[in-house]
Amino acid sequence: MNHQMVSYVLGRILFITGILMIPALFVALIYQEGWPGLWPFLVSIVITSAIGLLISLRKPLRTDFFAREGLVVVALSWLALSFFGSLPFIFSGAILNPIDAFFETASGFSTTGASILANVEALPHSLLWWRSFTHLIGGMGVLVLALAVMPKIESGDVFIMRAEVPGPTFGKVRTKLRSSARILYVIYLSMTGILVLLLALGGMPLFDSFVHAFGAAGTGGFGIKSNSIAYYNSAYIDYLLAVSMILFGVNFNLYYAILFMRLKNIFKNEELRWYLGFIAVGFALICINVSHLYSSVSLLFRDVFFTISSIITTTGYATANFDTWPVFSKVILLFLMFVGGMAGSTAGGIKVSRIAIYIKTTIQEIRLNVSPNRRLPILFEGKPISALLSRQTSVYLITYTFMFVVFLMITALSSPNFITTFSAVAATFNNIGPGLDMVGPMGNYSDFDNLTTFTLSLVMIMGRLELFPILVLFSPRTWRRG
Amino acid sequence: MNHQMVSYVLGRILFITGILMIPALFVALIYQEGWPGLWPFLVSIVITSAIGLLISLRKPLRTDFFAREGLVVVALSWLALSFFGSLPFIFSGAILNPIDAFFETASGFSTTGASILANVEALPHSLLWWRSFTHLIGGMGVLVLALAVMPKIESGDVFIMRAEVPGPTFGKVRTKLRSSARILYVIYLSMTGILVLLLALGGMPLFDSFVHAFGAAGTGGFGIKSNSIAYYNSAYIDYLLAVSMILFGVNFNLYYAILFMRLKNIFKNEELRWYLGFIAVGFALICINVSHLYSSVSLLFRDVFFTISSIITTTGYATANFDTWPVFSKVILLFLMFVGGMAGSTAGGIKVSRIAIYIKTTIQEIRLNVSPNRRLPILFEGKPISALLSRQTSVYLITYTFMFVVFLMITALSSPNFITTFSAVAATFNNIGPGLDMVGPMGNYSDFDNLTTFTLSLVMIMGRLELFPILVLFSPRTWRRG
Repeated sequence: MNHQMVSYVLGRILFITGILMIPALFVALIYQEGWPGLWPFLVSIVITSAIGLLISLRKPLRTDFFAREGLVVVALSWLALSFFGSLPFIFSGAILNPIDAFFETASGFSTTGASILANVEALPHSLLWWRSFTHLIGGMGVLVLALAVMPKIESGDVFIMRAEVPGPTFGKVRTKLRSSARILYVIYLSMTGILVLLLALGGMPLFDSFVHAFGAAGTGGFGIKSNSIAYYNSAYIDYLLAVSMILFGVNFNLYYAILFMRLKNIFKNEELRWYLGFIAVGFALICINVSHLYSSVSLLFRDVFFTISSIITTTGYATANFDTWPVFSKVILLFLMFVGGMAGSTAGGIKVSRIAIYIKTTIQEIRLNVSPNRRLPILFEGKPISALLSRQTSVYLITYTFMFVVFLMITALSSPNFITTFSAVAATFNNIGPGLDMVGPMGNYSDFDNLTTFTLSLVMIMGRLELFPILVLFSPRTWRRG
Repeated sequence: MNHQMVSYVLGRILFITGILMIPALFVALIYQEGWPGLWPFLVSIVITSAIGLLISLRKPLRTDFFAREGLVVVALSWLALSFFGSLPFIFSGAILNPIDAFFETASGFSTTGASILANVEALPHSLLWWRSFTHLIGGMGVLVLALAVMPKIESGDVFIMRAEVPGPTFGKVRTKLRSSARILYVIYLSMTGILVLLLALGGMPLFDSFVHAFGAAGTGGFGIKSNSIAYYNSAYIDYLLAVSMILFGVNFNLYYAILFMRLKNIFKNEELRWYLGFIAVGFALICINVSHLYSSVSLLFRDVFFTISSIITTTGYATANFDTWPVFSKVILLFLMFVGGMAGSTAGGIKVSRIAIYIKTTIQEIRLNVSPNRRLPILFEGKPISALLSRQTSVYLITYTFMFVVFLMITALSSPNFITTFSAVAATFNNIGPGLDMVGPMGNYSDFDNLTTFTLSLVMIMGRLELFPILVLFSPRTWRRG
């Protein structure tokens, strides 16, 4: 492990994080929150940037940087981010328990949207801004951002990007990583900017437009109203957000392709077809299943479309209380929660491409049982999938399931019932946010004990980083010299 | 597909099934049930044996018999068994809906123990006997029995045994299949016989001893009292049954090894160590977690040991209402439900050896992430596991999970709530029996609609046969000539 490089990169990222808190200062000024609004951010910025500068002061002598360093630096960055990002909540007194503040910030950066706050409407604007801004940062990745703005490291970029960008394949943006990262961030921020404008044009207050655009862009789901998007009661806003969430659940490499006029990449993309297919089939099935609850077709379509979009992209915004829907609809939604968005998007979950490969693997295995000697490779995106990808995809499900069971056991220790336990783990691991019962859309995560709250914070980060960056921290091999 | 061979073997198995109903006639005679007790069995025996004889009358000209034929013959046999085995229930009027009768019989043969009967104590002795006797038959496998008593088929034995015996590896009983099958059945029946005796010596009525020995031997769980084993309220019976269930959850190849004095096979067996380890750790954790509910340590140990044994072997007998235990204990039990017994035992679930391989795969993958170039094979039972076994084990989880989701969706259509849906699928797929809420230990499966009842019947058989025999029936390739 090259400790010098790891702490160097970590330091740079902390410095950037400090800078990213600055806009919250302006929010505090605009809303005239005075000294009580300003100082928590001022102090947090100084502490975070100073520590960041301090540990990245010395240029590393050794610059070797491989998979192990990439995983560790990503994991430590996300942990540090969630710790330093929680300082404004603690200093302002908005969240008294530091572990709760860590949870809230990890939930923001991991774009989960789970909250320990019972009354979010009581928070000052500056904190609400920062809370949602973490979604925007976490959505595309802090280290991808760092790559875009940082001076070049020797060989580490590819390992950092691989560890932070979700999905089984690394996509096609392999060459010129640094400029790709810049372009990705420009696309991402432009789309978010357009969404802010369109929301404001639809009559949403400007501050609310920013906050909800951040939540949709990162597919996070932190809101500022107790009853989420239902508060605005506007078909325009519902449809706009629903479509936006779906767009942010798409692999950003596809937008990259549009930008460079490679349109046939879009039409040929198999994962996109599966993604839209899941949405379309889910929409149709749920519409049929819940139609008796609605008197108007337009309201039915609007609620179901919004819910499907919010669930499959693991955002977590709500316009309808789907807890009252029939069991069949809930099972469909539960399935979509685990599916999640496309690889290389801001969404959580297991990812559409993996699910597609699982379904194809099942079909292939049935065929192999019938005729063991006629082994045909599984095709995905028009090509046979490699043995490595096949193994990694399979192992992902094994590890995911195993960790899920471990988290269930820990969460069960301070849970009132099974449905709370299960939904809390599912909602945090898949970066959705609200679960059911105690942690349902009307409840929050504040009633867990500190061990569970801290564990669920790790679960959210682990879900966002797709398991391994956090898991390797627990392996003794990682910390060996060499 | 060699249709001639398939229908030939199927016919022989139906004939044997008819014969296996004969003991129920004696039960009807002993308990003086008269004509109403006798005729349902007489007619069923005649119909089943006659149809069996009829379709196996013509000796097949082609005797080629491969994996495909093995899977199909096993699947069709189990479906036919569940159909013809349900005739006594229908003829006697004990179960009026034929689909419910099919469910009850499939539950028996698959050693699940799920019931649609609201009041089992109302059944005549002959039917209670037959209901539990299906556990004994299904536990070791009908086709393994057929192999033991049938004239030799050319090359099909290995494929039949592979399709019917549960577990990822086929074990070591590869040579001299036919005599092995005979020895396995002798061990199995001797152990069951000893259990009958020991139960009767403990003061259990003889009929009850037979029925519960069948239920424990097949790890099925059909009882004859509404409150299961709690009815007898005897520490001796509880401990005897608990130890017996654990013994029937052990790979029978190990008993084979004991018989031939290869004792070091036992001590070297890694799966056995995992199995006993799961039991020991589960016992310790639950004891700590529920200790506050018990005033006496001996009662605590007795209830927890019995429950763990009943759950991990997927039997489903109950002495304590674990629905009232804390969530942590329930999560442990839920995990053990999915683990199930050892490969090559009569128990259901995913099987201990697969779970052990999953855990080792997770650990290996974490290491591989740290040092991608130091790839070490996974050791199981002291040997590196083959690429084929590794792939099959991974794919098993994928297919299992995928089918689980499909079954959840179908079951949700006629379920009152999510917990019923989930536990009904988990309890039938893992061949446990009772689930929670509507299908809990105090409830039954009679309130589902016909589609769900039929689906869950298939789920039980699919769980018992480990997915693929039933799945290949749905593949068009299976039915092609050639």
